[in-house]
Amino acid sequence: MAKTIIVGSIGLDDVKTPFGDMKAILGGSAVYASHAASFFTNVGIVSIAGEDFPEEHKNLLTSRNINIEGIEFKGKTFRWSGEYEYDMNEAKTLNTELNSIIEFSAELPNNYKDAEYILLGNIDPELQLKVIEQLNQPKLIAMDTMNFWIESKKTQIIEVIKKIDLLLLNDGEARQLFDTVSLVDAGSKALALGPKYVIIKKGEHGALLFTNSSHFNAPGYPLEVFKDPTGCGDSFAGGLLGWLAKTDNLSEPNLRKAIVYGSTIASFNAENFSLERQKTLTMEEINARYNEFEKMREF
Amino acid sequence: MAKTIIVGSIGLDDVKTPFGDMKAILGGSAVYASHAASFFTNVGIVSIAGEDFPEEHKNLLTSRNINIEGIEFKGKTFRWSGEYEYDMNEAKTLNTELNSIIEFSAELPNNYKDAEYILLGNIDPELQLKVIEQLNQPKLIAMDTMNFWIESKKTQIIEVIKKIDLLLLNDGEARQLFDTVSLVDAGSKALALGPKYVIIKKGEHGALLFTNSSHFNAPGYPLEVFKDPTGCGDSFAGGLLGWLAKTDNLSEPNLRKAIVYGSTIASFNAENFSLERQKTLTMEEINARYNEFEKMREF
Repeated sequence: MAKTIIVGSIGLDDVKTPFGDMKAILGGSAVYASHAASFFTNVGIVSIAGEDFPEEHKNLLTSRNINIEGIEFKGKTFRWSGEYEYDMNEAKTLNTELNSIIEFSAELPNNYKDAEYILLGNIDPELQLKVIEQLNQPKLIAMDTMNFWIESKKTQIIEVIKKIDLLLLNDGEARQLFDTVSLVDAGSKALALGPKYVIIKKGEHGALLFTNSSHFNAPGYPLEVFKDPTGCGDSFAGGLLGWLAKTDNLSEPNLRKAIVYGSTIASFNAENFSLERQKTLTMEEINARYNEFEKMREF
Repeated sequence: MAKTIIVGSIGLDDVKTPFGDMKAILGGSAVYASHAASFFTNVGIVSIAGEDFPEEHKNLLTSRNINIEGIEFKGKTFRWSGEYEYDMNEAKTLNTELNSIIEFSAELPNNYKDAEYILLGNIDPELQLKVIEQLNQPKLIAMDTMNFWIESKKTQIIEVIKKIDLLLLNDGEARQLFDTVSLVDAGSKALALGPKYVIIKKGEHGALLFTNSSHFNAPGYPLEVFKDPTGCGDSFAGGLLGWLAKTDNLSEPNLRKAIVYGSTIASFNAENFSLERQKTLTMEEINARYNEFEKMREF
């Protein structure tokens, strides 16, 4: 069985940043998140890709012990193209070709239904609900979303939030979904819907964790080399989930550690395009940067 | 003598945020910074205001033991009007009336010339240089600036940076001044000019300290009530300088503490317009929030 599963997209991306202009590179929320989680635990992906999806990309995933039997292969792979301005904070979507993703059924293979740690990456909230209904014994369901769904399916997103344990949003999305300037107010409103934990991601500025009893303010890592932020939010979520699954410990101190491990992998991810930096990343490098995170916030 | 002096503007501001539309309220970099510093030490202001400057505002300053003999009074007080959009990150300047500020001589009273802790707030870099030349025995000269001067007097700003110990910039200004995306790169380039410390302010996201041997990543305080960011950068700088002057300790651990004290006062400052929140602020409240800063970054 797969103890940890990650639901999300698989794509081929065209990405332009001030540091390069790349075509048809490996991307998608499930790819970034599962690769990041694979540093800590075995993962099963639930997703769809096209029959054109390159063999080398499949091999990259299986070489990391990522189970791909939950990936359907049909038609053409989802394509996204985006561009980042000089400040690198937000992608401008230039084009989207949904292709096979519109046929995504979100059916779990039988041996995924007993999964305990689940990340519902950014997909249609109705499919996120469908995944939840297939789970027998989840210990932690985490969920991510994005502005596209907040604008088009807000009611359904609220329904999903009521059924999960950990909500992930970026700061702009949190303000938009809860119609407030204050991230503290957005965090309180999210907690009132049911989740025990709400994490607001702030890109290079780190992340905030809200629970009913406390705040945690995780630093961002100031990067010297910063080529492409694509997939950093997904890598953060995947690294976080992987650490929780590996340690099987949902205490708040361990969740804070999980956030710093997620931030660590996300910071490496931004150093190059696609999965290029993650591909060569070692546990020694991860642990060294985790220790730097500790030192740089001491006062 | 004044051991600590703060050079900057005094103004009457019209400020519009989603939470109010205020007219002719007390403002200016020297006012916010000296009030923030006054929680820790006695301060002398070096500035200019108009003959129309209200008596109650002078009284507010002197009631905090702020020495105002370095303030010239001539003509009309500097006026600024600005507006903040919903995300509250950057002011849009609607109008500026320089008034008496164009006659500002930046002459120090004789008993200010032996000052040891000096904040050169955001004024014309040529006047910042003039202040430096009048100092007999500075222990720490800190300097702030803004995009207006970076665009119009970049060469002079670089000259000032070469003569100071601590540079304060916000993230956008750091990227603009050193023509780079990376804040780490901007920090390195700034250190190469001579200052021992470079602090990059990131508004609600906290601040980064760069030295030749380390990084410090200070958290922002997630605010529940956030009405007006005007003066927060100045309050941060003033609180930081005040703590350093009070403790007379320039070690890096103490500088990290100073940054958190500066962040604490800045976070209170954002809770209301003008100096309204600072006016009622107590040391007990400052220490309680400082302790919250400690707890929220533990992992």
